[in-house]
Amino acid sequence: MISLADLKARIEQGALSPEAAIGQSLEAIGALEKTIGAFVRHDGKARAQAAGPLRGIAVGIKDIIDTADFPTEMGAAIYRAHQPRADAPVVMALKQAGATIIGKTTTTAFAANDPTATLNPHNHAHTPGGSSSGSAAAVAAGMIPLALGTQTGGSVIRPASFCGVAAIKPSYRLLPTVGVKCFSWTLDTVGLFGAGVRDVALGLAAMTRRPELVVPSSVAAPRIGVVTQAFAGAPEPSGAEALQKAARAAEQAGATVRELAMPEIIAEAWRIHPVVQEFEAHQSFAWEYGQHYDAMPPLLRGRLDESKGGTPAEYDAAMDVTLRARQALAAILGEVDVLLTLSAPAAAPEGLSSTGDPRYNRLWTLMGVPCVNVPTLIAEGGLPVGVTAIAGFGGDAKALAAASFVEAALAK
Amino acid sequence: MISLADLKARIEQGALSPEAAIGQSLEAIGALEKTIGAFVRHDGKARAQAAGPLRGIAVGIKDIIDTADFPTEMGAAIYRAHQPRADAPVVMALKQAGATIIGKTTTTAFAANDPTATLNPHNHAHTPGGSSSGSAAAVAAGMIPLALGTQTGGSVIRPASFCGVAAIKPSYRLLPTVGVKCFSWTLDTVGLFGAGVRDVALGLAAMTRRPELVVPSSVAAPRIGVVTQAFAGAPEPSGAEALQKAARAAEQAGATVRELAMPEIIAEAWRIHPVVQEFEAHQSFAWEYGQHYDAMPPLLRGRLDESKGGTPAEYDAAMDVTLRARQALAAILGEVDVLLTLSAPAAAPEGLSSTGDPRYNRLWTLMGVPCVNVPTLIAEGGLPVGVTAIAGFGGDAKALAAASFVEAALAK
Repeated sequence: MISLADLKARIEQGALSPEAAIGQSLEAIGALEKTIGAFVRHDGKARAQAAGPLRGIAVGIKDIIDTADFPTEMGAAIYRAHQPRADAPVVMALKQAGATIIGKTTTTAFAANDPTATLNPHNHAHTPGGSSSGSAAAVAAGMIPLALGTQTGGSVIRPASFCGVAAIKPSYRLLPTVGVKCFSWTLDTVGLFGAGVRDVALGLAAMTRRPELVVPSSVAAPRIGVVTQAFAGAPEPSGAEALQKAARAAEQAGATVRELAMPEIIAEAWRIHPVVQEFEAHQSFAWEYGQHYDAMPPLLRGRLDESKGGTPAEYDAAMDVTLRARQALAAILGEVDVLLTLSAPAAAPEGLSSTGDPRYNRLWTLMGVPCVNVPTLIAEGGLPVGVTAIAGFGGDAKALAAASFVEAALAK
Repeated sequence: MISLADLKARIEQGALSPEAAIGQSLEAIGALEKTIGAFVRHDGKARAQAAGPLRGIAVGIKDIIDTADFPTEMGAAIYRAHQPRADAPVVMALKQAGATIIGKTTTTAFAANDPTATLNPHNHAHTPGGSSSGSAAAVAAGMIPLALGTQTGGSVIRPASFCGVAAIKPSYRLLPTVGVKCFSWTLDTVGLFGAGVRDVALGLAAMTRRPELVVPSSVAAPRIGVVTQAFAGAPEPSGAEALQKAARAAEQAGATVRELAMPEIIAEAWRIHPVVQEFEAHQSFAWEYGQHYDAMPPLLRGRLDESKGGTPAEYDAAMDVTLRARQALAAILGEVDVLLTLSAPAAAPEGLSSTGDPRYNRLWTLMGVPCVNVPTLIAEGGLPVGVTAIAGFGGDAKALAAASFVEAALAK
């Protein structure tokens, strides 16, 4: 993989030109893209910018995020060749920081379930996960050092876990979702993929002009609460093993680690996530579902068919649970620095028909709290499994620092 | 003006065909639009739908809201002839309720300050207010029974006050802002204009499938807290008179009315509204401001120039004030049913160079609470002045009922 931190240091030292850094990505795309299929399209003539903290950094943008220089097709026939007028604010933030938008990465249709043909770089017989399939796979394959994705259920953290890359789903609205195809306005969150935790931290810090997000060279041992999310069902062996391994490594490196039970309201929030998501999705996709029913991606259409009867009263009740669960979670996060939980039930499933199960991710999306995937182990078939570090709302720096601590502990 | 409630009743009784109702609007547009200039474009061949609670209701859509059947030009040269692919969810909600989208109404450029040529129907030498200029003017002129606008500072309530129409800025995100050009994602709110309070209530109830928003035939006398917003400066005589008149009328009709002092955190929230607005606007308009600086509307560009130095730390502090003020306001709204305050400092100013001052509106937009404008008096020059009824977050039905009570009290 290409480390953003490493690239940035070499560029700043003058050991590498921004143009050569972009060239390295173009070369890797030339060699690997045909096999992996992580891009919808890319700019083979992309050039580096001369200035900015991300000069020389090639970034892939999930194809539900508007770009003025590339069509934005949403992975869906309805938007074939659709050309937005403007760049989304997150794209402009990257450009203003000096990055080069090198192309658009594949997405499941409308960032829902209908899969892309993208392969998992670690094992081509397996899915890279979704919905941000191309962004995770492009970073994992070593084609680019940074990519943007989005998460409504588990669409950033799960593919990061399956592809063995670091990723952050920041606090809700730390990055604007303006110009990003909406699934659920309460849930949709823009996230970043990179080789390691320090890499995504540098990307997020540059995009938001928040230097405090950069992981310091030395990180104090955090107080960690391990959450198994029993309400979401038991994981498979490789998922369970990853959580145990990460917790043990952190403890051996000096962290305080204990298992935390979650109150019933948190389990309730996990249960009602789909109520919020589907009620809003019926409004967000009203035009597509109402006017282009036959052309709708079949898995998403089926979900909308099933959830047609959702009422405002059910939605209001779910939003009430959400608010109470956020308060309960804030109280819990007063006792520990971060939570550590599963990123996925197991390694990536075989085949491309499913992008895997977001059941360990969706609660945290609904809570709006920052989540960082830390690659943890390699399971059978060479497939990675990660864990998630979680801080309280607005505690993105804390989540990144703790994730970096766990990452370093695992490397020992 | 055309009353939605009246039209709807006659259509449901079979006394008026939906087609004839749409024809009435087309005729009025034919007669008045040339003078008022409330529409960017309209469909002279618009037809009624056969079913739905809003069948026969012609609706104007502010031209920053995406429509698949009309270009959406944002009142700005940069978006001339821009044709969105999809209808915004609020447009689809109207269509699904049976309404007819009759055209796009004028907006100040990007819903900021640069004015349109739209005239105030009550006095052509005066502004109709903004940014939802055309929506307020089209309803006030009797061209259409319902229109959509948006508010980030005072862009729904202020033009409603200036044009003598009812309007609601609902609770934050009761109506999705998906497909609406973003100014500030924390503030932007879609609102409705109609002839009277019961009219906008019927429109909002149909759009949201929430029958509880319909104002009942008999409304209990509310407990009203009058708020003068001294922190925003003193009003001019016509504004002060409107607030006094509405309060007195409500009291005489049986309401409990008392003046309420606001705690310092509320005044502080009023002060920091522009910090939130401009920090987010720099991101929302990053593409336009960064790539089309010369074509930017000059007043908005000037605001962005001035607020260029805004930092994440200032924004975080402002968001912290916002949260604390929302909690304080929720406590205050436990003591009374609604607040009553100024909709504008006075009647509409003369000329078209300014759309007026949103200083009495912006706090409530930041608080996310439902606001309803009630036309209250006619000042010098035949110009209307309104007042605003405000309930707690999610109390849209309460705000509408109380506004209807005040409206009826004023009619006595």
